[in-house]
Amino acid sequence: MSKKAIIVLAEGFEEIEAVTVIDILRRAGIETTVAGLDDLSVQGSHGITVSADVKLDTAGSDFDICIFPGGMPGATHLGCSEKVQALIETMNKDKKIIAAICAAPAMVLAPIGILKNKKATCFPGMQKHFEESTTYVTDNVVTDGNVITSRGTGTALAFSLAIVEKIIGEETADKVRKATLAN
Amino acid sequence: MSKKAIIVLAEGFEEIEAVTVIDILRRAGIETTVAGLDDLSVQGSHGITVSADVKLDTAGSDFDICIFPGGMPGATHLGCSEKVQALIETMNKDKKIIAAICAAPAMVLAPIGILKNKKATCFPGMQKHFEESTTYVTDNVVTDGNVITSRGTGTALAFSLAIVEKIIGEETADKVRKATLAN
Repeated sequence: MSKKAIIVLAEGFEEIEAVTVIDILRRAGIETTVAGLDDLSVQGSHGITVSADVKLDTAGSDFDICIFPGGMPGATHLGCSEKVQALIETMNKDKKIIAAICAAPAMVLAPIGILKNKKATCFPGMQKHFEESTTYVTDNVVTDGNVITSRGTGTALAFSLAIVEKIIGEETADKVRKATLAN
Repeated sequence: MSKKAIIVLAEGFEEIEAVTVIDILRRAGIETTVAGLDDLSVQGSHGITVSADVKLDTAGSDFDICIFPGGMPGATHLGCSEKVQALIETMNKDKKIIAAICAAPAMVLAPIGILKNKKATCFPGMQKHFEESTTYVTDNVVTDGNVITSRGTGTALAFSLAIVEKIIGEETADKVRKATLAN
């Protein structure tokens, strides 16, 4: 049975970060649902509008991983959403994977305690929103337990491949890496 | 006056390649028009639908650069389009910049002679569509005169930054490189 991912898009999401994740996960055979936070058509922070597959309300559950792109004000919208908070808390309770990049680790995961006592990264400067027990590191991708974080647009490909490696395995990640000419 | 770019999307375009170019060029202040080949809503090769700003028919002219993403069958559709051919030929006559990545150098530029007597790159293997006078090189990004080519998804960020450097200059390209944490 194929693995299932959900990525949530809010107005002002960072387009490269979102699209890279969706594209790479689908290349790896992960069933990837693009959920719009409020709408089925969501505009990113650089004016690119992407169609969501579903609204978050009707996205269902039973995902192996949930992913949150950065971009402002996209990450702020995600962080303020009770629906997003409920999704993350359920995923965390079930020990499912939670992944966030750029502003999202700081604006979405940190405020509800997901980074507590964990190593994590985010867009440089935004670690001021981390709680004290979180160890900020500057690796491009940081995996600690069930949480994967990454720094920003330029690390989106490495972030996506790390997700594939965690969810499916190294062999598939390597195949996708080679097919996309990623380093 | 800001520089003007047009990127053309056909059904089956490679999403990372297209979105990375649009995002990075807009970050650099280049006025970037997303033109749908036939429709205002275009689905990529990994099921991601992106909204175009205009249809190619009504996109106007007077662009400093035209850009063609890869992805199949997207690049084939672009290569078969008389509207695309007319756009490229006009741009080339006017010595404007023409840029293509992945399958697009081979499927869009080569067939109408744009790579004649030039160095160029493309997705590995697709250089069989280059004409004999074209020198195939394996650099991630190759600039020869008014033509910029690149290899594939994993080189989309470098391709986009090379476009910014060519159109605007090194300083702006460096600023965007730093802001996106690109290497």
